[in-house]
Amino acid sequence: MPAGRHFLQIPGPSNVPDRILRAMDYPTMDHRGPAFADVGRKALEGMKGIFKTDSRVVIYPSSGTGAWEAAMVNTLSPGDTVLMYETGHFAMLWKKLAEKLGLNPVFIEGDWRGGANAAAIEEHLRGDKGQEIKAVCVVHNETSTGSVTDVAAVRRAIDAAGHSALLMVDTISSLASVDYRHDEWGVDVTVSGSQKGLMLPPGLSFNAVSDKAMTASESAGLIRSYWSWAEMAGPNDTGYFPYTPATNLLYGLNEAIDMLHEEGLENVFARHRRHGAAARAAVEAWGLEVLCNTPSDRSPVLTAVMVPEGHSADNFRAVTLRNYDMSLGNGLSKVADRVFRIGHLGDFNDLMLIGTLAGVEMGLRDAGVPYRAGGVQAAMEVLGETALANRAAA
Amino acid sequence: MPAGRHFLQIPGPSNVPDRILRAMDYPTMDHRGPAFADVGRKALEGMKGIFKTDSRVVIYPSSGTGAWEAAMVNTLSPGDTVLMYETGHFAMLWKKLAEKLGLNPVFIEGDWRGGANAAAIEEHLRGDKGQEIKAVCVVHNETSTGSVTDVAAVRRAIDAAGHSALLMVDTISSLASVDYRHDEWGVDVTVSGSQKGLMLPPGLSFNAVSDKAMTASESAGLIRSYWSWAEMAGPNDTGYFPYTPATNLLYGLNEAIDMLHEEGLENVFARHRRHGAAARAAVEAWGLEVLCNTPSDRSPVLTAVMVPEGHSADNFRAVTLRNYDMSLGNGLSKVADRVFRIGHLGDFNDLMLIGTLAGVEMGLRDAGVPYRAGGVQAAMEVLGETALANRAAA
Amino acid sequence: MPAGRHFLQIPGPSNVPDRILRAMDYPTMDHRGPAFADVGRKALEGMKGIFKTDSRVVIYPSSGTGAWEAAMVNTLSPGDTVLMYETGHFAMLWKKLAEKLGLNPVFIEGDWRGGANAAAIEEHLRGDKGQEIKAVCVVHNETSTGSVTDVAAVRRAIDAAGHSALLMVDTISSLASVDYRHDEWGVDVTVSGSQKGLMLPPGLSFNAVSDKAMTASESAGLIRSYWSWAEMAGPNDTGYFPYTPATNLLYGLNEAIDMLHEEGLENVFARHRRHGAAARAAVEAWGLEVLCNTPSDRSPVLTAVMVPEGHSADNFRAVTLRNYDMSLGNGLSKVADRVFRIGHLGDFNDLMLIGTLAGVEMGLRDAGVPYRAGGVQAAMEVLGETALANRAAA
Amino acid sequence: MPAGRHFLQIPGPSNVPDRILRAMDYPTMDHRGPAFADVGRKALEGMKGIFKTDSRVVIYPSSGTGAWEAAMVNTLSPGDTVLMYETGHFAMLWKKLAEKLGLNPVFIEGDWRGGANAAAIEEHLRGDKGQEIKAVCVVHNETSTGSVTDVAAVRRAIDAAGHSALLMVDTISSLASVDYRHDEWGVDVTVSGSQKGLMLPPGLSFNAVSDKAMTASESAGLIRSYWSWAEMAGPNDTGYFPYTPATNLLYGLNEAIDMLHEEGLENVFARHRRHGAAARAAVEAWGLEVLCNTPSDRSPVLTAVMVPEGHSADNFRAVTLRNYDMSLGNGLSKVADRVFRIGHLGDFNDLMLIGTLAGVEMGLRDAGVPYRAGGVQAAMEVLGETALANRAAA
Repeated sequence: MPAGRHFLQIPGPSNVPDRILRAMDYPTMDHRGPAFADVGRKALEGMKGIFKTDSRVVIYPSSGTGAWEAAMVNTLSPGDTVLMYETGHFAMLWKKLAEKLGLNPVFIEGDWRGGANAAAIEEHLRGDKGQEIKAVCVVHNETSTGSVTDVAAVRRAIDAAGHSALLMVDTISSLASVDYRHDEWGVDVTVSGSQKGLMLPPGLSFNAVSDKAMTASESAGLIRSYWSWAEMAGPNDTGYFPYTPATNLLYGLNEAIDMLHEEGLENVFARHRRHGAAARAAVEAWGLEVLCNTPSDRSPVLTAVMVPEGHSADNFRAVTLRNYDMSLGNGLSKVADRVFRIGHLGDFNDLMLIGTLAGVEMGLRDAGVPYRAGGVQAAMEVLGETALANRAAA
Repeated sequence: MPAGRHFLQIPGPSNVPDRILRAMDYPTMDHRGPAFADVGRKALEGMKGIFKTDSRVVIYPSSGTGAWEAAMVNTLSPGDTVLMYETGHFAMLWKKLAEKLGLNPVFIEGDWRGGANAAAIEEHLRGDKGQEIKAVCVVHNETSTGSVTDVAAVRRAIDAAGHSALLMVDTISSLASVDYRHDEWGVDVTVSGSQKGLMLPPGLSFNAVSDKAMTASESAGLIRSYWSWAEMAGPNDTGYFPYTPATNLLYGLNEAIDMLHEEGLENVFARHRRHGAAARAAVEAWGLEVLCNTPSDRSPVLTAVMVPEGHSADNFRAVTLRNYDMSLGNGLSKVADRVFRIGHLGDFNDLMLIGTLAGVEMGLRDAGVPYRAGGVQAAMEVLGETALANRAAA
Repeated sequence: MPAGRHFLQIPGPSNVPDRILRAMDYPTMDHRGPAFADVGRKALEGMKGIFKTDSRVVIYPSSGTGAWEAAMVNTLSPGDTVLMYETGHFAMLWKKLAEKLGLNPVFIEGDWRGGANAAAIEEHLRGDKGQEIKAVCVVHNETSTGSVTDVAAVRRAIDAAGHSALLMVDTISSLASVDYRHDEWGVDVTVSGSQKGLMLPPGLSFNAVSDKAMTASESAGLIRSYWSWAEMAGPNDTGYFPYTPATNLLYGLNEAIDMLHEEGLENVFARHRRHGAAARAAVEAWGLEVLCNTPSDRSPVLTAVMVPEGHSADNFRAVTLRNYDMSLGNGLSKVADRVFRIGHLGDFNDLMLIGTLAGVEMGLRDAGVPYRAGGVQAAMEVLGETALANRAAA
Repeated sequence: MPAGRHFLQIPGPSNVPDRILRAMDYPTMDHRGPAFADVGRKALEGMKGIFKTDSRVVIYPSSGTGAWEAAMVNTLSPGDTVLMYETGHFAMLWKKLAEKLGLNPVFIEGDWRGGANAAAIEEHLRGDKGQEIKAVCVVHNETSTGSVTDVAAVRRAIDAAGHSALLMVDTISSLASVDYRHDEWGVDVTVSGSQKGLMLPPGLSFNAVSDKAMTASESAGLIRSYWSWAEMAGPNDTGYFPYTPATNLLYGLNEAIDMLHEEGLENVFARHRRHGAAARAAVEAWGLEVLCNTPSDRSPVLTAVMVPEGHSADNFRAVTLRNYDMSLGNGLSKVADRVFRIGHLGDFNDLMLIGTLAGVEMGLRDAGVPYRAGGVQAAMEVLGETALANRAAA
């Protein structure tokens, strides 16, 4: 094990802060006993504030993919058509899941370099005269590309088309890092996970569920048991769960909720935006290209960087891991070995970011990838300007 | 929070030892990085030794109920008949799950006072001339009643009937506490969970899968994605997972596997048998009745105790929790308020058992439940005899 | 490592609760930085409430023996006479320390079976016409014998004798377990340590210092640097220390102070008295003798038990450790191998006590020490009566 | 509490690695029981390897200042002359301690900009015809200035002068970070502490003791008890301590010893030298001056940086703490507010160093201290060259 702290700069799992690790490091309690109700209620109610919703939040002991599955099996029936948008690898995986569940996904192809295009969605919905499309599914922050979809615009598109489809949004890598508003944006099912903005280890996933989605679940024909909202609802109302919850992760979740409110959600979002800007300034200074070529869609959570033709992103990542003990995200499927991804999310600060970008800059050199020095310097300038601005405003 | 250590004497989650809590209290790592392969392989291979199998083990980030679902959706098709045995509440829940999945469970009724009757199973199978029954499902240690099913006998029953049904066994509350042999007993799918004999917090579940079951999965018609063995198999072969695993729980699992082997599985089983015997001696001395009235089926893991008519088991448990800071298990469904359950499993020793039984004896008094003093004394005698016996043998 | 939790039933270090271990398990901070002042002040001010004093408390990174030395080197000069009382082994060690420091201890001999006799102290002081005696030193709770000295009575004895000697009291094993009042009882220097009633690991020690003692320190001639109150006073006033403090133990100390106030100091004392009574009931039922034969002086913190002639207390302890994974205290110097000591202090509750006494009872049997069964039962009766009494009062 | 990990870049306490925090986070054990001997022996024997000595190591529950005191009170008598060298603030404090102990320190004045001058020491010793000087005391790594003394040269100076004085060396901030050889360099008493290169929280201190020093202790006249080597020796021989040790810190110490050997002490030293060189390259690029102006004496552990006239180092530190959540060391006494100190020791790596230096560079700007940008870039170049060199050699 090398000296010093490993830099875990994949776009999630993010670094788990000591407060959360310690909160989880307590004896497991009786999940049927009276004291548990406080733990359960705090988690279930507290997550409403994070999703910005007044309706129901469901918590699963599962990975985020489980919450994708839950969103669909609770609301849809075999053969239902769903409109999905190819923002990247995770949008593709969600589409494959829909196929496995016996749904009929209509997939709007994309080039992986921006968020979902609301106009294209609107056009599809307008064409669906029979209202065959039962749900529109988009990924808020596409973890494979570093692009953010404008969810409010998607909502407006659905409304403009006068369509009744449910809106489902994957916020696995955006929740608690990027501004998100389940109720205000009229989302029906928001999917999320524990190991990114919530700063927890993986093992919990979430559905935030609108009343419309809950009503849809009453007639949804897909088979479900583990993921059933109906089974959850009763016990959840008093702070309990229908089966044994992941108690120690819930301890950590409650600590995370406290931490997010102590910092203030808007401050958390601003911190991520600032770090995203600094990271992109570094990429630009290096003379490299950010995968997301739509400036408005660039992610505050991660930056995917293209390596020049003839060079291997994976070799660069291996060199960086070996020489600087830093893990970076790899390029997935269509962009395998063509991009690397820098995670700058969760429990993170300016000096950790600079350490991260220095690891990239030195790794580029060591791996023989053509670049111009000065990326770290450029990022420091961005941070410095905004630090001064913060102080002026305070 | 009261002084001293809470006695968590429900039949699971069991007490998580410090070694395991500390093992989990490490930063989450990159689950796609090279170092993770060692973690993943150790867990996947190590669990084979715990199940006593040479075939595949699958690990899910989920509660134990998820592993029930996994066993079925991977091997069965809509409308398939499964033979199940009513050993208690958890057998009933598994049957309900089968119904939700669109299966056709044939449920052999039981009185909740013993394990599954192999002869009755054999009779059913002999009557199934068309081999309509696709699986026989039994619960090894019925957590709601404290009864153990003789799984080897069930295997012999299936063989005697010349039946091709798969054998599925729930070992959620027995694995790593009660002798269990997946391969030797010819089990096709063993289901288990992390929070009992494995001494972990809840959040991981397991399937051990025979080659026959794996073959069955190729033609099984139930829809599956999260639970799919096929998706797991490829990544698992090199120590990875198809979706983000519950990394920190895997750290703990690997520590648990080490601890179990350090003590020796046979010693772990003997320790639980000894504590079961001591607990039952206490119940007998109190003049109360053990729910399981089949002596050979009494569980080494928990003891369910019937309270006399006209008295409330739940009131007794509430009094005991308030006065002695000990959580006991409640009676479920058919035996609600009629029994309480003493967990004596996992990371447990003689003096913890005596403290537990003292809490019961004092709680009976405080709650006004009729009993005879002397249960703790009787348990100490059993422990003393076997302690001396151990020393004579050593 | 055996299964289950070790029973650490020596009379200190006591069991460290999870809350305190977790509080200490945080990164060390800059002990000169602005955030440290809160940590330091909370500890220094908070300990005043525990000592029940309004005057100064000094905290050392050292064992309790260091705080003995500190009490003397800050207040006395070479050759000074100090009156000490032989309550047991630790009183003897303190006397030896006085000798090493070049003081002249007058040692009132005792039989190790009770607290210090205030009348004998008064007689000595009345005989000291020249006020040669500069300090009277007594041990509040003699950890080697389980006897408590009536400190208020010692104060009255000094006053009755019209003597100006300082009163120094060792509360290493009593503070935060046995009622203690530095100011009200007119104590000049109270000595204490972290690893008993304060529920911390060893490594911190304390002096509570009256104004009279502080004044005495100005002219005290013994050499001192590490232990110097004068060096501490300035930095302590703003929450800092003159040399690097044991930061992580201070984190734990602050958590301990919170826990003690949450339970309520008077409740903490009552809990210890109740457990002392139950432990002594067990000893009586076993037909064994408590070393402290002065009923009013029997300790709420530990019970020292005499083994019958011809039997070895140390062999009994070794057998108990091997068979039941419980550590008990040994007999020291004059009572070596003649007594064993049961610690029942700190973070402790009824069921832990019963487990402890069961370990003793089974250990006596296994070691062949003559005893009558029934000690555990007798203790349960004492606990039950007082539990019911508590409820009636509540 | 700000987001992300605090940068604790004072020159000790250093960052405590998770492995050590977790090792300490275990229940305290019976320090008189049989299992403790392994803990004690491992610590006492293991520290010999770290000091590179075959003779005795003594471990105190105290701060490092306690070990200074221990070195003197065990070997010297009232009025003894000791030769000390003013390398900086800590040398001054040690001298003040000598005065408080009633010794007669002869203090060779220095300008705080380099290590102790061996030639000056030799000259003093040659002048001491009557061998009045009983000990020569030097600080190996002066934490207040970032200068290293060539201890082997001091040894040669003593030998060249034919002097019998003991050689005492303070390695509080160098041990396990800077090459050190107690036996080979003929040191008689080495003083050290836990919270720097040993990566532990503060609370343990050390003396390594040559046979000559041990012999001297037999006739040394200073009063001692807590610090007495003679009291330690007997119990230490079997792994025990004469008074309650700081058990949980010993758990951590044993983990630290393992970690240092896993990395290899020579690699640990090389890592610190490399980081020192990179830090100094940054200072040079900023156009600032390193306090230590003797290139051969510059510390691998910390870099003290002078701020230009008219600017406040303390204001810069406060700005940096507020804006970048990084703690830096302050200038002490003679250089108060004139220098700041960057700690780069203990559990530390390249990216943490760059983050640290970026915090300095951005802090200089924010605080309005004149500097040239490019320090971080310069450090990255040094790291890159040596990383490539390492790979070429591997």
